Amino acid sequence: MIEEIAEKLNIPSAQLRELIDRGIIKEVEGEHPHLFRFDKECGAIENGTAIFVHEKIDIVRGFPKIRRAMILDPTIKRHFDCPTVMIEEKMNGYNVRIASIGGEIFGLTRGGLVCPYTTEKARDIIGDAFFKDNPDLVLCGEMVGPDNPYVPKDIYDIPSLDFFLFDIKKKASGASLPIAQRLRLVEEYNIKSVRIFGEYPVNEASAAAREIVKELGRQNHEGIVIKDPQTKIPPIKYTSSQSNCGDLRDGFRFYNDYGRPFFFTRIVREGFQAVEWNESEEELRERCLQLGESILKPMVYTIKSRKRGEQIGENVQIKVKYLETAREFEAHLNRMGIDAVFEEPEKVDGGYLVKIKRLYQSTNDKTMSVLNGELW
Amino acid sequence: MIEEIAEKLNIPSAQLRELIDRGIIKEVEGEHPHLFRFDKECGAIENGTAIFVHEKIDIVRGFPKIRRAMILDPTIKRHFDCPTVMIEEKMNGYNVRIASIGGEIFGLTRGGLVCPYTTEKARDIIGDAFFKDNPDLVLCGEMVGPDNPYVPKDIYDIPSLDFFLFDIKKKASGASLPIAQRLRLVEEYNIKSVRIFGEYPVNEASAAAREIVKELGRQNHEGIVIKDPQTKIPPIKYTSSQSNCGDLRDGFRFYNDYGRPFFFTRIVREGFQAVEWNESEEELRERCLQLGESILKPMVYTIKSRKRGEQIGENVQIKVKYLETAREFEAHLNRMGIDAVFEEPEKVDGGYLVKIKRLYQSTNDKTMSVLNGELW
Repeated sequence: MIEEIAEKLNIPSAQLRELIDRGIIKEVEGEHPHLFRFDKECGAIENGTAIFVHEKIDIVRGFPKIRRAMILDPTIKRHFDCPTVMIEEKMNGYNVRIASIGGEIFGLTRGGLVCPYTTEKARDIIGDAFFKDNPDLVLCGEMVGPDNPYVPKDIYDIPSLDFFLFDIKKKASGASLPIAQRLRLVEEYNIKSVRIFGEYPVNEASAAAREIVKELGRQNHEGIVIKDPQTKIPPIKYTSSQSNCGDLRDGFRFYNDYGRPFFFTRIVREGFQAVEWNESEEELRERCLQLGESILKPMVYTIKSRKRGEQIGENVQIKVKYLETAREFEAHLNRMGIDAVFEEPEKVDGGYLVKIKRLYQSTNDKTMSVLNGELW
Repeated sequence: MIEEIAEKLNIPSAQLRELIDRGIIKEVEGEHPHLFRFDKECGAIENGTAIFVHEKIDIVRGFPKIRRAMILDPTIKRHFDCPTVMIEEKMNGYNVRIASIGGEIFGLTRGGLVCPYTTEKARDIIGDAFFKDNPDLVLCGEMVGPDNPYVPKDIYDIPSLDFFLFDIKKKASGASLPIAQRLRLVEEYNIKSVRIFGEYPVNEASAAAREIVKELGRQNHEGIVIKDPQTKIPPIKYTSSQSNCGDLRDGFRFYNDYGRPFFFTRIVREGFQAVEWNESEEELRERCLQLGESILKPMVYTIKSRKRGEQIGENVQIKVKYLETAREFEAHLNRMGIDAVFEEPEKVDGGYLVKIKRLYQSTNDKTMSVLNGELW
């Protein structure tokens, strides 16, 4: 078995054994088929790469980190050594990979765990036809909408939760299909896709990208991903100020649970965008106010809530067809180390609504201790 | 010798040997008398503790980190189990310890290095009388003013650089004199002291402190230190919003050289202050704008400077009596790993003015790479 996995991963089997020994490849407990996942990236193999072991070995490569442009020009020109680039929308939800393993569809989250909620949705949304014809492909996309337990957003006019595809990859190699081929497939199988703004000559792309990002920002949308149509060159991403500030609002509400670098990088993006967009005094002042409000207001909200004795947390919800899915999802959050309280399911059209309070214990405790007069 | 040092530090000599072996106690090269310093705190012994070895052993304990109140009430009440507290000004400069070793005065910076510039100033400012009478005491205070190579500030109406005492400690034990005794000594020897706002019953101190900090903030001054008059309980500090924002301005100008936690803690202070001071919508909006401007404007300034091809750095200056001091100070900065370019000394009244450009290489290089179109 080791030999077969190593061959599919294209690494020596001795190295594979070492990765298992060092705990970089971890078994995910309680999964059928058996599942192992890469807990860190390792050489060319991405963090979140999943290895399913059933009557055969199925590998679903991790979704690679998309690197970020801090300014559009000259970054696009410098990065893309190809005649044109495609600009697609980067939606704000959570990244999933959908694959068929032994004839059954599974939804994987970024880290390579099977998410029961995502799996139920994927089976519902995608159906069987695509994977019957293409068992060795992986659908990569964003799960978006208000019934999103990880990143709930109301900005898209989506009633519950929906899947928007942005990449189709080959299972074991992780190679992306060229964009034209991907678009033919989504049309053929009627799969929703993220918005595609168009194909631009590389030299004109940064000007186009800037206008697109500004418009997306006005709608509070996240940003764009810029891609080589042949998918030979890795894509890069760029986000709107409204998205950076939205992240800061989410983060500072739970200021002691988010990492320091999360805040820092989002703040630095604002500095480079202000310079690239050559803002007037008045525009810069407005950006400063937005930034300051995105940082301070959520923190003030949290401190005041805690002062009133409330638990610091975030209300999210899922809508499931089967109660079993909600129970499995609770176990899944647990396994991920996420602290969450599930309310009793409510019967709704087509299934159950389950309200969940996700707790942020570190922010909760730190805020309390300061309010009680402890030193920092 | 080991036995004598261990005894003075009040630790077993085996532990002292281990601290030397582990590199926690380091020899400072090129000093006469020989100097060793604690590079980390260790148990009760502070980082920056200096051990001078000459015909005898002289230990100057490190200046302890003063812990911070994030809110004044109930922190002061909770921390101070004594009837009254003294409130003193916390000035914005650099912390120095002045001690007499074998009859000569030395100025030590926080880490336990002898700073040649500080030493020249200390000899000039303090004179011989105090240490002739009190060879076993250490004068602790802030070096403040525009001719300050570490933290230059123009906010105090000080023409060049001056020393303001805030503590007198015993050399080897690091015990502080009670405040009343300290005040008698500074009066007797005519040593400048930081401003003392008064002694307050513990129950009234937080209200008084708030008014003092607000007034200090209006003058762009840093904040306060609250102390047990008997100096048995460790002091705590609290700073104005203007000082937090000033730190952010200094830091974000050199955004890639400062640590992420530096930014984070200063931002979080603003959140707690806004809640404790129960600010109106309008006041909070103003605080948000101040915060946002303190973060973004210096970053924009730096990115634009780099775009024009400038080296990212900070212009500081020193005024020395002797050229030798400037040369030694250059070597001292070098030893501290600070990258600085010294201009030719200019003859001025009473000595020489030396302009110094302190370089921030990481911010310089990172900004350039982004402007050149490299990915983050």
